[in-house]
Amino acid sequence: MVRRVVVLGGGFGGLKCAQALARADVEVTVIDKANHHLFQPLLYQVATAGLSPANIAWPIRNILRHQDNVTVLMAEVTGIDTAGKLVRHSEGETPYDTLVVATGSRNAYFGHADWTEHTLGLKDIDDALAMRNSVLRAFEEAEAQPDAQARLPYLTFVVIGGGPTGVEMAGALAELAKRAMASDFRHIDPTHARVVLIEAGDRLLSTFPEDLSAKAAASLRGLGVELRLGKRVQKIGDGYVCLADDQIFTKNVVWAAGMEATPAAIWLGVTPGHGGRVVVDDHLRVVGLEDVYAVGDVAEVQGQELPGVAQVAMQGGRYVAGQIVTPTDEPFVYRDLGTMATIGRKAAVAVIGRAKLSGFVAWTSWLSLHLVMLAVFRNRVIVFFQWIAAYLTYQPAARLITSVNSRRGVDRTR
Amino acid sequence: MVRRVVVLGGGFGGLKCAQALARADVEVTVIDKANHHLFQPLLYQVATAGLSPANIAWPIRNILRHQDNVTVLMAEVTGIDTAGKLVRHSEGETPYDTLVVATGSRNAYFGHADWTEHTLGLKDIDDALAMRNSVLRAFEEAEAQPDAQARLPYLTFVVIGGGPTGVEMAGALAELAKRAMASDFRHIDPTHARVVLIEAGDRLLSTFPEDLSAKAAASLRGLGVELRLGKRVQKIGDGYVCLADDQIFTKNVVWAAGMEATPAAIWLGVTPGHGGRVVVDDHLRVVGLEDVYAVGDVAEVQGQELPGVAQVAMQGGRYVAGQIVTPTDEPFVYRDLGTMATIGRKAAVAVIGRAKLSGFVAWTSWLSLHLVMLAVFRNRVIVFFQWIAAYLTYQPAARLITSVNSRRGVDRTR
Repeated sequence: MVRRVVVLGGGFGGLKCAQALARADVEVTVIDKANHHLFQPLLYQVATAGLSPANIAWPIRNILRHQDNVTVLMAEVTGIDTAGKLVRHSEGETPYDTLVVATGSRNAYFGHADWTEHTLGLKDIDDALAMRNSVLRAFEEAEAQPDAQARLPYLTFVVIGGGPTGVEMAGALAELAKRAMASDFRHIDPTHARVVLIEAGDRLLSTFPEDLSAKAAASLRGLGVELRLGKRVQKIGDGYVCLADDQIFTKNVVWAAGMEATPAAIWLGVTPGHGGRVVVDDHLRVVGLEDVYAVGDVAEVQGQELPGVAQVAMQGGRYVAGQIVTPTDEPFVYRDLGTMATIGRKAAVAVIGRAKLSGFVAWTSWLSLHLVMLAVFRNRVIVFFQWIAAYLTYQPAARLITSVNSRRGVDRTR
Repeated sequence: MVRRVVVLGGGFGGLKCAQALARADVEVTVIDKANHHLFQPLLYQVATAGLSPANIAWPIRNILRHQDNVTVLMAEVTGIDTAGKLVRHSEGETPYDTLVVATGSRNAYFGHADWTEHTLGLKDIDDALAMRNSVLRAFEEAEAQPDAQARLPYLTFVVIGGGPTGVEMAGALAELAKRAMASDFRHIDPTHARVVLIEAGDRLLSTFPEDLSAKAAASLRGLGVELRLGKRVQKIGDGYVCLADDQIFTKNVVWAAGMEATPAAIWLGVTPGHGGRVVVDDHLRVVGLEDVYAVGDVAEVQGQELPGVAQVAMQGGRYVAGQIVTPTDEPFVYRDLGTMATIGRKAAVAVIGRAKLSGFVAWTSWLSLHLVMLAVFRNRVIVFFQWIAAYLTYQPAARLITSVNSRRGVDRTR
């Protein structure tokens, strides 16, 4: 009988693994709770109305439609029977000979579960649409307030977390308010909107070299973003965020301060590593189990500290596919192709090999790389066009308020 | 004091009226419950995953941003005090000297309120997204069913109503199933999906000439759509639709069988006309009230029978703007520029003046006209590109399932 490989997750790691098994004599089943592969690096642009969801997401089964040895199943995993070798999910159960766990990460609140009520995270399309609704509605509510004082909390945007997502969100929010919305209102002046970025560490983008952190900070200040570095959030409530030395009144809090692994360690019954991750050896085999691999954000490779980026997942997925076809002694080695973060129009920071880039050069590199990485050619053209149009007109493409519920207060356990 | 004109609704009629008042010495306030103007003629393409919502919708306040005499307010109207001349809404109240009601129509169930639970209508972006989710999810659910019999209701799509919306939906659903989804699944064959179009009258597109109705019917049959003409729906329940002589098991029922006016007649305290519409004289003045006009789908012009199309609303809006600036004795006369309906790839029917078009010629006319009518240039380019790409690849652009709730069972009273 042909070996059955079940891949959990259709993100960067899972998709790459399935694709790398195209010519292998195995039967692959990809299980994901969503019907689409999501290009997460551009998710913040959906949240800030620059792109439509469909521009950065495409049906997993459509991407893999010509690969005859792959079946795609839209289902939520509920458990894994490692002894009986089967995955339990919302549509039934699926047996496996080899299991690849690539379920990624989710927002983490580090013991402050109540903060989910007052903040919006950014992990999937629904998050992004909820944030887009919330941000656009804040301007509408400010416009409808009778007095200037009442408008302030609506026009104050607080982003918590100074990593790439926080930096990108803060930059995009500042540009949305100060450029795109500038002439749309009659009672409020969106250019007076405050964007505050809070980071507990003493610099932004802590995984980048210090000089690039400084450049990112300067770029954000240039956009009018207020930086609060070395500040810890003490409390978040309805309409406010408290720091040790300050209280900010705001109706808009973006949570970009942390991720934890999806609960795969619990499904597998193994002791979780840092951030709930599944501990794997240098062959990406889950420690203590047979025939189970884990890649990407959900995995912690023993003795290595890998960043939570697409490349780690993709290289891991490809490596595991190779191991499934022809097991070798070669351990998994992550090849760092570079890291980037963008800060609105014309600014970005990037580390590529030994080169450190910033400003316009880094920004154009960022644009090109992200265009090339989009899985579907058509979306490359659309995103390229939307970027050019937005660059020329300052008008983002997708400023729609839809009735999708705000996801505040919803427990988003997978 | 400058005259205050309040326009209710930012659809075709309201937007055109506000724009036509650009150089008038009046203060205009446009109130709409949505933040966007919607190009409704292409809404069925959002519902069938061909276009993204942002491709056919744009913020009203952004469209009008350079028109200094216009304020846009996002609010839901709750009542109108015609004696005190003010509009009550979710954000407070707005006084007017002249009121223009352009709130359009909504789905109507003609005494079968319980049918809303089992069907999806198509009137706004939220409807379209709910329908898209529902249609795409039906294929996923069919794929996950263990036996062939259980799959059938998921793969059966029933469209009720043979007007332009019903015809366009049936055609688009047939193409989605038989072309776009054809190679995406492993357990089901989407090309075997049934699309059934039910129309109580004895022909489709009853406002068109009979030979064009016949051509539309032939085109739909060519796409594999089953037509049930002269059949009335007796009952709709969970999983089935009953006709007098047949019962169809289906999980997907599209309601395109009727519209009624938004409840403006109730707000205004006037006796409603047909379909709850506000009765206006030949100057579009609401009968029995001073300084109140109504245009488009919400209005019934005494002695005239006008179709519920964009052109009627736009011409009405422009006419009323003229009357506000310089009242004349000239009555409103609707100038019929033509009517069109499309039936999937390469087929359409159109009446333009005395010319009757069908097939490919009508289809290209339909494409051009709808592109030109899109309010925002950028969306013309995007829609044009998406159409070309879909034409060449058979792959629609926006096959995303998001978590927006199905709107079944929600009372959608404005």
